[in-house]
Amino acid sequence: MAEKISKSVLKRLPIYLTYLKGLNDATYDNISATALASALNMGEVQVRKDLAMVSDGGRPKVGYRRTALISDLEQFLGYDNTNDAILIGAGKLGRALLGHRGFSEYGLNIVAAFDTNEALHGTCEAGKLILPMSDLESMCSRNKILMGIITVPTDHAQTVCDLLIANGIKAIWNFAPTHLDVPDGILVQNENMAASLAVLSKHLSAHIKGY
Amino acid sequence: MAEKISKSVLKRLPIYLTYLKGLNDATYDNISATALASALNMGEVQVRKDLAMVSDGGRPKVGYRRTALISDLEQFLGYDNTNDAILIGAGKLGRALLGHRGFSEYGLNIVAAFDTNEALHGTCEAGKLILPMSDLESMCSRNKILMGIITVPTDHAQTVCDLLIANGIKAIWNFAPTHLDVPDGILVQNENMAASLAVLSKHLSAHIKGY
Repeated sequence: MAEKISKSVLKRLPIYLTYLKGLNDATYDNISATALASALNMGEVQVRKDLAMVSDGGRPKVGYRRTALISDLEQFLGYDNTNDAILIGAGKLGRALLGHRGFSEYGLNIVAAFDTNEALHGTCEAGKLILPMSDLESMCSRNKILMGIITVPTDHAQTVCDLLIANGIKAIWNFAPTHLDVPDGILVQNENMAASLAVLSKHLSAHIKGY
Repeated sequence: MAEKISKSVLKRLPIYLTYLKGLNDATYDNISATALASALNMGEVQVRKDLAMVSDGGRPKVGYRRTALISDLEQFLGYDNTNDAILIGAGKLGRALLGHRGFSEYGLNIVAAFDTNEALHGTCEAGKLILPMSDLESMCSRNKILMGIITVPTDHAQTVCDLLIANGIKAIWNFAPTHLDVPDGILVQNENMAASLAVLSKHLSAHIKGY
């Protein structure tokens, strides 16, 4: 089942999780798919289906026990396991990600960062060591790292991507605004800020025309 | 037409644009929807439809002139206009965004940042001034700012969101991993890193089980 779930469902599950975790303990002992759908402006049928996929704790009229649903979601999403990752490119964005405390909540552990800038080698950011690129191979093989985070400038992204794959990386989180070519079996998740900006800009231009 | 286009189409257009801009000038004078679909691992019918929506320059057998298609996409996405925005929360992530040179390419201009930390007031990050929250109202009204970027900790995000809306902001780019309640007519685009991580983690757990 886990392998067959669609990307769009996978992207909605963390939204439910974040919302459920933010609710007041005392007031929301139980929550229904209907209430969740309405709070998040989503379709009720969709929410109902999504939740049924991760939890069998839903009861007619009552809904889900909130705490049980949270733990079902976390287990399903693998947030109770930790994924080790390395990060390439310790510039501003890379260092911001290293210092992001929220990642551990989602089961991500960035073990080290790599950069070509010699001045950074051996320094720490948020307790994570920044290493030279020449250490990447041994780090990956010794620690069986499967996830790589790319925060290098656009024109170096493909080279870094190829290097990661050559070192056994299977999943790439790409923050460089460019398309990466990868062989089958490698997943690239693009953090596409340009796409978000497109949605926002269009909303604003529709808003301005509306006057 | 612009107002009716779906979010999913809007999110694909920047992907085409990034890819087209990255191609070698000499080799790719023309490009077909088929070639684009194959390079990006997308469905041909979808790409064909998407492109037809933004450009009428496609010709049978030949495809699109690459430069003309780039400019049609840019115009459609509003990247040739600049959207002014303010950013709230000049922590690590906020400062990384202020220093992100790529945003201007997408028509985004962050005019100033706001933070509650007095030590930051009057300082600059990447040439953008960091101001006290008390200056937010006059900045928004004087400059008719319509877009706000939220990079504050989760538990302050809703308060900041309400403040932005009270000051005329119509589109919010939310980097806090939480759901924001907004009235109709306000667009929230969540930069949902948790969702990306969910997709990556699932891929890896399927990969590990595959052994």
